[in-house]
Parts: sequence; structure tokens; C-alpha cells
Amino acid sequence: MTRSDGRGHYDLRPLKITRDYIKHPEGSVLVEMGDTKVICTASIDEKVPGWMKNSGKGWITAEYGMLPRSTNSRTKREAVRGKISGRSSEIMRLIGRSLRSVVDLKGFGERTITMDCDVIQADGGTRTASITGAFVALIDALNYLKKQGMVTHRIVKSYLAAVSVGIFDGNEMLDLTYEEDSKAQVDMNVIMTARGEIVEVQGTAEGDPFTKKQMYRLIDIAHKGTKEIVAVQKEVTSDIKGLIWPENVSLPT
Amino acid sequence: MTRSDGRGHYDLRPLKITRDYIKHPEGSVLVEMGDTKVICTASIDEKVPGWMKNSGKGWITAEYGMLPRSTNSRTKREAVRGKISGRSSEIMRLIGRSLRSVVDLKGFGERTITMDCDVIQADGGTRTASITGAFVALIDALNYLKKQGMVTHRIVKSYLAAVSVGIFDGNEMLDLTYEEDSKAQVDMNVIMTARGEIVEVQGTAEGDPFTKKQMYRLIDIAHKGTKEIVAVQKEVTSDIKGLIWPENVSLPT
Amino acid sequence: MTRSDGRGHYDLRPLKITRDYIKHPEGSVLVEMGDTKVICTASIDEKVPGWMKNSGKGWITAEYGMLPRSTNSRTKREAVRGKISGRSSEIMRLIGRSLRSVVDLKGFGERTITMDCDVIQADGGTRTASITGAFVALIDALNYLKKQGMVTHRIVKSYLAAVSVGIFDGNEMLDLTYEEDSKAQVDMNVIMTARGEIVEVQGTAEGDPFTKKQMYRLIDIAHKGTKEIVAVQKEVTSDIKGLIWPENVSLPT
Amino acid sequence: MTRSDGRGHYDLRPLKITRDYIKHPEGSVLVEMGDTKVICTASIDEKVPGWMKNSGKGWITAEYGMLPRSTNSRTKREAVRGKISGRSSEIMRLIGRSLRSVVDLKGFGERTITMDCDVIQADGGTRTASITGAFVALIDALNYLKKQGMVTHRIVKSYLAAVSVGIFDGNEMLDLTYEEDSKAQVDMNVIMTARGEIVEVQGTAEGDPFTKKQMYRLIDIAHKGTKEIVAVQKEVTSDIKGLIWPENVSLPT
Amino acid sequence: MTRSDGRGHYDLRPLKITRDYIKHPEGSVLVEMGDTKVICTASIDEKVPGWMKNSGKGWITAEYGMLPRSTNSRTKREAVRGKISGRSSEIMRLIGRSLRSVVDLKGFGERTITMDCDVIQADGGTRTASITGAFVALIDALNYLKKQGMVTHRIVKSYLAAVSVGIFDGNEMLDLTYEEDSKAQVDMNVIMTARGEIVEVQGTAEGDPFTKKQMYRLIDIAHKGTKEIVAVQKEVTSDIKGLIWPENVSLPT
Amino acid sequence: MTRSDGRGHYDLRPLKITRDYIKHPEGSVLVEMGDTKVICTASIDEKVPGWMKNSGKGWITAEYGMLPRSTNSRTKREAVRGKISGRSSEIMRLIGRSLRSVVDLKGFGERTITMDCDVIQADGGTRTASITGAFVALIDALNYLKKQGMVTHRIVKSYLAAVSVGIFDGNEMLDLTYEEDSKAQVDMNVIMTARGEIVEVQGTAEGDPFTKKQMYRLIDIAHKGTKEIVAVQKEVTSDIKGLIWPENVSLPT
Repeated sequence: MTRSDGRGHYDLRPLKITRDYIKHPEGSVLVEMGDTKVICTASIDEKVPGWMKNSGKGWITAEYGMLPRSTNSRTKREAVRGKISGRSSEIMRLIGRSLRSVVDLKGFGERTITMDCDVIQADGGTRTASITGAFVALIDALNYLKKQGMVTHRIVKSYLAAVSVGIFDGNEMLDLTYEEDSKAQVDMNVIMTARGEIVEVQGTAEGDPFTKKQMYRLIDIAHKGTKEIVAVQKEVTSDIKGLIWPENVSLPT
Repeated sequence: MTRSDGRGHYDLRPLKITRDYIKHPEGSVLVEMGDTKVICTASIDEKVPGWMKNSGKGWITAEYGMLPRSTNSRTKREAVRGKISGRSSEIMRLIGRSLRSVVDLKGFGERTITMDCDVIQADGGTRTASITGAFVALIDALNYLKKQGMVTHRIVKSYLAAVSVGIFDGNEMLDLTYEEDSKAQVDMNVIMTARGEIVEVQGTAEGDPFTKKQMYRLIDIAHKGTKEIVAVQKEVTSDIKGLIWPENVSLPT
Repeated sequence: MTRSDGRGHYDLRPLKITRDYIKHPEGSVLVEMGDTKVICTASIDEKVPGWMKNSGKGWITAEYGMLPRSTNSRTKREAVRGKISGRSSEIMRLIGRSLRSVVDLKGFGERTITMDCDVIQADGGTRTASITGAFVALIDALNYLKKQGMVTHRIVKSYLAAVSVGIFDGNEMLDLTYEEDSKAQVDMNVIMTARGEIVEVQGTAEGDPFTKKQMYRLIDIAHKGTKEIVAVQKEVTSDIKGLIWPENVSLPT
Repeated sequence: MTRSDGRGHYDLRPLKITRDYIKHPEGSVLVEMGDTKVICTASIDEKVPGWMKNSGKGWITAEYGMLPRSTNSRTKREAVRGKISGRSSEIMRLIGRSLRSVVDLKGFGERTITMDCDVIQADGGTRTASITGAFVALIDALNYLKKQGMVTHRIVKSYLAAVSVGIFDGNEMLDLTYEEDSKAQVDMNVIMTARGEIVEVQGTAEGDPFTKKQMYRLIDIAHKGTKEIVAVQKEVTSDIKGLIWPENVSLPT
Repeated sequence: MTRSDGRGHYDLRPLKITRDYIKHPEGSVLVEMGDTKVICTASIDEKVPGWMKNSGKGWITAEYGMLPRSTNSRTKREAVRGKISGRSSEIMRLIGRSLRSVVDLKGFGERTITMDCDVIQADGGTRTASITGAFVALIDALNYLKKQGMVTHRIVKSYLAAVSVGIFDGNEMLDLTYEEDSKAQVDMNVIMTARGEIVEVQGTAEGDPFTKKQMYRLIDIAHKGTKEIVAVQKEVTSDIKGLIWPENVSLPT
Repeated sequence: MTRSDGRGHYDLRPLKITRDYIKHPEGSVLVEMGDTKVICTASIDEKVPGWMKNSGKGWITAEYGMLPRSTNSRTKREAVRGKISGRSSEIMRLIGRSLRSVVDLKGFGERTITMDCDVIQADGGTRTASITGAFVALIDALNYLKKQGMVTHRIVKSYLAAVSVGIFDGNEMLDLTYEEDSKAQVDMNVIMTARGEIVEVQGTAEGDPFTKKQMYRLIDIAHKGTKEIVAVQKEVTSDIKGLIWPENVSLPT
């Protein structure tokens, strides 16, 4: 049994990551996951928030937005409404938190790297695509610092990717489209490292609650998807050396 | 090995639920989980949001706030800052979503029940205590409607409780205090029904990522805590009949 | 002729002041005036607003809020509306101003004490109960500073209490409930010291204007109420010594 | 002993009321109280707020603002700060409440009259001057309705005026300038009808509290001032007939 | 003498217009003017603003935004600042006004077409590129309505394009880059129809004022640029028939 | 053929400029252009915005507002709406930019002069009247600095005035009233120096686009109006010496 776009239950949509998509930022990526398209940029600022001064550490933060007509029917512009929606705010916090979890913040000095993830076309999984793309833009920005001598060793613990899984029509599935997501009984976003460790998991029963067994299977499906996404990330960043720890090496403690 | 307050790793803090705590609302509860204290009220409004009109369904929504000095150092009042923080907004959405998942929204007519969870004293786990308490206040409000003939059958699928688990000093633990939470490597909030099903799970690696095995053990610990919390909920609501489905009965489909 | 709750015209409702109600603040009180219940906390901050720097004086400020369902029908949360209402703002200014009038601001160094008055259950007289309770929480915070050697002499000129009076059904009355207040022709809030001096008076003809004679009688009734409230304040703070000037002593000039 | 501008303690500053100051509004006045100058306009809207629909009554509301450089040093524009200050909000409520207290709201149909009081030059007493001027602008707007047959009888109970009194350098004084006000020990605003009744009294001890005796004397001084202000109001509105009840006639009940 | 990018003074940068760039909107365009890139979408809503109801006319409005890192250094996100900047607001009004000027609003029924212009990469001339691109996206949306029978005749008076001109280093120039614009003495934006008529002109002396003669020459240069832009617009829309009046035909009156 | 107020097509309305209109500001003017009346004040602040520190230059900025009932029907107060409208924001930027263009910012030290233009009665041309009046208020403020020795030479390049022109009923006209403006096909605001140079031009086709020839004629008409306005400005400022360069002298470079 296949899905409306012909995929099998455990298949990802086509994934494409284009680096250097915008000319100004220190890192910029267009990530396309099926029809979901997100511009991710990394901007380096030579200072940290007040509460981090003299900590010897840098900071990574993220913002997220959707162009008004990235969605099927037009969404009101947040700048016009005068505030960030609860949903956007949640996603911003999620992106920042996940990226920070794989970077040694002491390794790039007292700088702030701001990730902007702006969805230009939405078809489900915008937050997971944002993380997948933002990771690559972040690597580019860190590499930029490395070339300038501001980063001197491997400060990224692992590749990082995110993917959605869910239960739809009673079937567990990988990488839901908007249509699938809006009808899913369970929706789960999983953020994992290339080492197969979990950085964040958020699972919600939109309809009926789910069992522990179902949850464990969903995590396994997400793990399969993560590996495939990381493979693409590695391929497009094969020119970047000495920044990310290989999986077959133990991390220093 | 015990914790700073003498508890074992898998022990809950003392839990107390006081019903009818405020005189005006249709349901109101003071929930105390150790030093964390939250006032939860349920307010019935005789109409639904515009997008639900003529759906034949009711709606349950939630708001959450903290008194400025519920925290160790004073937190700026959100009304003075002129906006809800990202954190509060996230919690509001979580509480509303979880409560809706166990109630048959068709069963109480086109009404909105607004849950207000206001933390008067905080010591970790305010969002999980809010859900645990709000569930009881919601039951009281639904019982109020039942007494007036607006609810005519069992419309609550199961008892619902929430608890935090986490990994702290390398140990998996149940029900973290603020001090423990702020130092935890992993922080996870689990919302479960009395039937042992998961309604929502949100796990975050504040420090190092965690393995699937660690995750599964945390879910099991949360399950243990949920059972104990539900026991208290049942005890304090023993006078309410005919509203909640017993666990030993299959839910109608 | 008695009132709906059985009180005589010049009677207060039962008043209860509970100290140390919340564990974190330097001073905290639950004040209950009949069914009106307010949590008052005092938070000490080791700096003053910019315009007071190097003045050698401290500052006392206040904020006020109502839990959404402290009222008979739910009031929209101010944080959600994105602004403080005109009414709340007026009350905040009133509380801060009155408390400052009885404290020697030079006596506790360049610190700010922020009073938070949060109404958890409302039945008329929330602003006067807030002042009555906040005075006690403030005393506790000043005593905290005294114990640390930051306050070295009597810096509080007098006990301070507030009460509402009004004209309802043609009768002058003390301490109006919400029901009485909403039907009153005249509503007056009086803030007085234990020495019988007026700190603030605000009288409003909601219906017909009132005569000077009526006003004078209302002030006298308020004076009677103030004495009774101060007696309770003194009783619950009997352990605090050397901070407040006794009434039978002239204040130094 | 006289004041810096040569006045006696119980003297008003020169008062001038210019009607028809702005061409568009149904009523408009420039009121000058010494150097305090306020433009007061009355705008009639053919509907009432939602909560008053089908009440058969009209509504009177007020807004107040200060031009940024009406004050000695420039005050930040409220529109730029994005919110009404607590002080402005307090004054808006006061103006509206006082004007409503002398008008029979049933007498001008389901209409809203919005009073705008904009201070173009400030030298103390801007809120009292606003009420004194707004009363005349309101009379003009009601007279406009009367000419159109929308008002058919005397619907204004009495002339209404406002004045400040205070204690400065130990002396009780009438109509304080900004300089006097900023140094006053006690500041009181009194709003009275031509019949000598009190509509609103707000007295504040900025420094030391005041006695009941002092308060009574301040009220008497305010009464003297009110009479003189009403005399000016009567003089400039001598062409308006049949709208305001004379003082020597009892009001119908 | 040529410019830093090798262009002559009266040369446009390379212009590329890509239709159907985003899948959801009724019209969508990526316009690239040198390094300036803007996504323009047209969204049809089946109703008009309240003040236009029953007018028999439609409405065209526009919004404009910049991705935070479309600019050389990161610009704070307007949604985070909580308001639209003065500059954005000015541009929104300009885009909407210009597009309305060439469309017969009676010709597409009581509908609102919202144009969103979002700059993804900025290098000067973002507002003029937005208008140039939005015109094409608008044509697509009108054509969409035409195919559905909602538009029945030529309702667009003419092609419309916008371009910047300016005086830089004493030379009059066409289509300024960001670098040129920031150093220009005079900056002018001109919006013209394919008929050579002016729809809007906004000229500003950033440094020294300019003479009438200089202004006339700038208008002529802009006219030259407009013709070239319109040629590109015509080329990419050659499949759209029966919607726009040809220039060699007089408009009906 | 004359206009509804009897003027010829190229006639200004009566212009009156009253200096020293408000007592506090360093410069203040009431400008009356027919029934349009604007209070313009200049406030000197002894510091510049952060980004200008240590530049050796001063800054001139402007704010603009309308009293709610300056307009024919009441306009909602911007402070109550909580934000500046797009229109006001556009005008603020225009006023500041034009005034800065004729002043040597290095000539008055690191100070900010804030111009406030508040419309008390509106009948078309409020932005141009604001500039005309603000220029005089600014001259007064600069003269104030000159008297204190803070300005030591001619720092104003020229007199500056603004006027509206437009095409109404097919006729080109000078200085449109509100009624004329609201029906105009073309509306243009021109800001010129006494030397006949253009500082800013903003022309908009509200209805049909206009030709280059029409534009050139409108500029000529505006030039005529500017000369007449400057004559009035010169007359009312004849006592101010040594601040403004005469037109018959070349500006130093």
C-alpha cells in the first residue's frame, strides 16, 4: 500500500540542500523536502546576550517565519499582527535548542550565531526541514569562522537531522505531508544525531492516545529517516573538514 | 542513594489536590506537588470560537501564568511586558491539547471551557502539576454541566495525569524539583491516561543527547508516577459518578 | 437593619492576615477580607530606577493583577490582551504611592522593593485589601533587611491600612462587598495611618453627587474601620520590633 | 503673603473659555487657566458601545493627551510609546465619569459623545482645566442635538467644574501651578456641581499625611474656586437655554 | 565611464522574472534585478474590506517584508519587534496604490487581491523590483479569474513597471545598487505605464537639493528603463491574452 | 473660473505664521494655511542617537500627529490604537528628511532637535503646512543656540517651504483643500528651497496617470507657491540675523 504521492510508508520525500543560496549571510541554505522549501541563513554577531558576557561561550539562537502565502490559504503576516504566534515561538525555541546541543559553545568565542529559517513554500514538516537545513547553514558559518582562525578544532559533536513520523489511517509513516499530517492520529517530531542519539522528541496524540509500543516503532522509523537525511547532509558538505566529529570516534569528555 | 529532599529516584513529591478552592468558577483546584502550587480553574462560556460554530462540538482551551514572585527571583509580569512569553505560550497549548485528547468534545454542547492555571509558588514541574490539577477542575466543571442535564453520558475517556522525568547526575529520576531540573542532562514531560497510553511526550536533551534505551526507561518511570497521581485524583473525586470511563471497560468507538 | 451577610452598617468583614504565605519572597502575605483574597509579596532588588541613582534613597513600587477567574465571570487575562487595563494601572500607582508615604526612603539604602498584589478571589475592596496586606508584607521585607543590618532604625512612620466606605440604599456603610459596591451611589476608598491621618482619599459619585456632610461622615466611618484593621496588623506582626514608630511618640522631623 | 505669580492663597489664576475653537466638532473649547491651555472637543457618534445597545441610553466618554512639548521638558509621544500612560488613562476615566454624573444619559438617545481633551500648554491643573472646559464643549454638543430636536428637555443637572487645591509650604492654597504642585505636601482635585455637591474628590499626601481638619478646609477652598469657575462658564454660555437645571430649582426624581 | 559592475550610466541590471515560483498562490513570481531578489505572490480573497461592501468593486492591497538576512548585516525581524517599520509601511502603501492605478477595480467583482512582496536578497531597488514583479503576479491572478469567467474583458489599462534613478558622483544614473544608493545625492523612484505616463514619482535629495532640469533628465532616464522592463514583462507573459489594453489603442472612457 | 473658496487656480490660501505660540519649547509656531492649523515645536536635547555619537554632528528628527477631532469626522487617537499609522509615519520621515537637507548638521554640535507637528485643525495640506511651519520653529531653536554661542556661523543653506499641487477637474491647481484633494486625479507635494531647488517631490496619480508635461507644469506652479510662502517666512523672521544664507550668495562647498 502506497501513499498519495506514491511513496512507501517508510520513505522520505526527495531531499535537496542547496548551499550559498543567499549572498550576504555567513551560511545560507535552501532546503527542499518534497514541496516544503525553507531558506535557512546563519548570521554571526560579534557579541553575546548580556547574561552570557564573560562566560567564554558563544550562543546559537533561531528565528522562524512563514511567508504569508507559503501556505495553502494565505496566513496573516506576523509582523502585521504585531506578534509572533505561539506556534512560531515554539518552533524558534526548538530549533535553537537542538542546534546548541551538538555544538561546543566554548569553541567559537563570545559570538552569537542567529539562524533564520523562513518557509517560502509549506507542505508539512517545516520545522524538521528547518532544523535539517539550518544545521548545514550553521556548519557553513562555523567553517567561515574556522577559516578566519576563530575556530581551531572539531566543535561539532555530530551531524544533526530532524524528521517527522506519525500514525495515519492506522499506519506508522515517515515524513508526513501537510495533508497526511492534518489527518494523523499521532504526530511526532524526532531530532537525532548521526550517532543515533535523541536530542529532542515531541509526540502528540491529536486524536486517540498511543501505546508505548507504537511510540518505540515510531522512533525506529525516525531513526531510519535520520540516517538517510544525514547522508545527504554529508554529501553536500564533503568539502568541509576538521569541524565535525566522525561517528566512529568517541567524543572527548 | 537519595535526593536532597530524601526521596528515592522513583518517588513522587507529596501530592495534594484541594477542590473548590475559589468560589466563583465552575471548577477550581489548588494542586500542590511538593513546593509547586498551582491554582487551576475551569470557566464555562456558552459559546465556541467562530471557526467551531454549528459543529455540534465544544472546545477546551487553557491559559497559564506565574505570579511574579512564584519564582526564586522575581520574574517580570507578562501583562507589564505586554506579551506572553514563548514558554508560557508553549505551556498553554500543551495543557489545552492534552485535556482535549481525553474528552468527547461532542458531549457537552457548543460551549468553551477555559482552564486557567496560575502558579502561585514554583519549584519545578509547574506544567505537569497544571495538567494534573486542571484535569480535576475540568471534571468538576463537566460534572456541573452534568447536574444541569447538559452532559448525559460518560464523556471522559480516562483519568489524565502528567509528570516530569529526567536524567540528573547520570541517574534517571521521577518528578524533578527546580534545582534538579536546572542541572538535568535530559528533561522529559510525559502525559498519560490511566490506561497507560501516551497523550504527549516531550523530551529534551539540555546537555548530551540520550539513547533510545534511556528514553524507554524514562517512559516506564513516568508510567509508575502517573499511576500514583491518578490514584490521588480518583480519591479526591470519588463523589463524581458517571462521567469517566473505568479503565477495565473498552471505550466505545 | 443589617446587610445581606448579616453585618451592621459600620462593621468590617472578617479579616485574616497570613504571613510567610509564599516561600521565595522576602515578605509574603495572604490577606482575606471576607471573600476577597489577595496574595501580597515583597521582592527586594539591589538597585533603584535610573532616575534615583546616587540619591541615597530606596524606592517602593507596586503591581496589581487579578487571576482571570477571581471574578464572578471570567475576566480576560491582561497578559493575553497585551496591556494593563486603566483600572489596574490606577491601582498599581495608588498602592505604591500610599506605601511610600509612611516609609523613610533614605532608611533602607538604594534598593527597590516591588510589591505584587495578586487577587485570587474578588468580592469588593480588592485595592484596599491589597494595601492592608501589602503593608504587612513590606514590613516583613524591611525586617529582613533589618536583620541583615541594612536597616538600622525605625523607618516606618506608622501602621497603614485602607478600607472602602460608601453610600448604598441611602445608608452610609463600611467595607462594601462587590454586590454592594456595584449598586452604591457613592464609593470611597480611604487610606489612613494608625495616627488617624489621611494618606489618600478617593471618592466618586457613581450616581448622584454627595454633600460635604456625607463626605465627612464617610471619613469618620473609614477611620473606625482603619483602627480595627490596624489592630489585626499589629497582632500578626507583634514579633517585629524597632521598625515602626509607636503612635504615642512624635515623629522626628 | 502672596505666591510667586502675585496671587493670594485662595485666588484662581485668570480663566478664559473660548467656544467654537475648532471648526469640525459639535462642541469645541479652548480653556486657559493661567498658562495651562487645553483644547476640548465633543464628537457625537450615532451609536453606543455594544454593552449599551437597546438600553435607551447614551454614553459619554473621554480621552486625554498632552502634546509632547506642552510640558517643560519634552514628554515622549504616547502614540510612539505605543500605549497610554497610567496617568493619562486615570485622567480619561476621571473626565468621563464626572461628566456622566451630571447628565441624564436617557435624554439624548443612543449616541456616544466622545470628549477629547488635548493639552497644548501645561502649567499644573491640566485635568481640572480639562473637566472645566469639557463641560462647556459638552453643553455645546448637547445644544447642537437640542437644535435638531434630539434633546427635548433639561438633561443636565447642574453646571460642573473642577479645581485643584493643596498644601504647599504649610499653607492651604487654591489652583496650584506646576511649580507649586511639584512641591506640595498634599494635592487634591475636587469636582463639584454648581449646587455645591461633590462629584469626585481625590486627595493624595505626596509627603506627610494630612488631618481630617486640613481636608475639610481644602474642600471649602475648592468650593470657593468652583463658584468662581461656574460664574465664568455661565457667562460664556449665556445664549444656551433650556438645557441645564438652575440651582434654585429642585431636580425631578 | 562605467560603474563598479561594468554597467553604463543608463543601463539596467540583468532582469529575470520567473512565473509560478510558489505552488499555492493564484499568481507568484520571483523577480531578480541584479542581486535584488523578491518573491511576489497574489492571493485572492472572496471578500472586500468592510468600507467597500456593495460597491461593486474589488480591492488590491500589498504587503512587503524583508527576510532578516536579505540585507548585508542582519535586520531585526519585524514580527519580533512587534511592528512594521515606517519604511515598510511606506512601501506597502506605494505598491498597492500603483497597482490599483492601472486596474479597473469594477472588473473583477467584490474580491480582494493581496500582493505579498518578500525580499529574499537585497541590493538596492527592492521597492521598484517589487512593483515590477508584483505586476506580473497580479496579471496571473487576474488571468486565473478570467479563466473561471470572473473577468470578462480587458481590465488592465497598461503594463506597469518601476525603476530607481539617482544622482551619484554628479552623474545621473539608472537602477542604483545598494552601494550606489547609499552614496547618492538624489534618489528617485519612478513608476510608469507602458504608455509613458507617470503613476508615481518620489524624489528625495539625501544630500544637496536638485534643480528642475536635473529632475526632468532623471524622469527621462527612468522612462528609458521602464521601456526595457516592460519588454521583459511582455515577453514572460506572452501567453496571457485579452487582459491588458495594448498601448496603440485608446482606453475607453 | 474660480474655486469654491473664490481662489484662482494658482492662488495660495491665506497664510499666517505665529511665533512663540507655546511657552516651553526652544521654538514654537502656529501655522495657519486657510483652515489648516498646525502647532510646530522644536525641542533641543543635549544628546544624539547612539549611532551618531562622536560624529561631531547633530540630528534633526520629526514627529507628527493629528488631534482626533482635527478632522471632519473623528479619527481614532493613535495612542489608543497603540501605534502610529502608516500615513503618520510616512509624514514624520518626510518632515525630518526635508529639514535636515537645508541645515549643516555639523554646525550645532552633538544635539538632537525634535520637531513636533501637531495638527489641531485639518483642511488639506497638513504635511506641507507642517514643513513650512516647522522650518520657522527650527530657525527659532537654532537662533536660541546661536544666542548661547552654540552656533557660530550661517548653518542654514536656505529658506525651505512646502506646498501641495494637483490636478482637479482637469485643472492644475495650487494648495488644495481637503475637499479638492479628495477628488483630485493627481496629488503632488513639493518641497523647495528659496533658491528654487527641489528637496523632495512626491506625486501620486490617485486616478489616471499623468504625463511628463503635466508634471513639469505642476512643478512650476509649486515653485510659484513656494516663493510666496518663503516671503511670509522671511517677513516673520526678519529679526533673525546671521543664520541663513541669502539666495544671492553662493554656498561654500
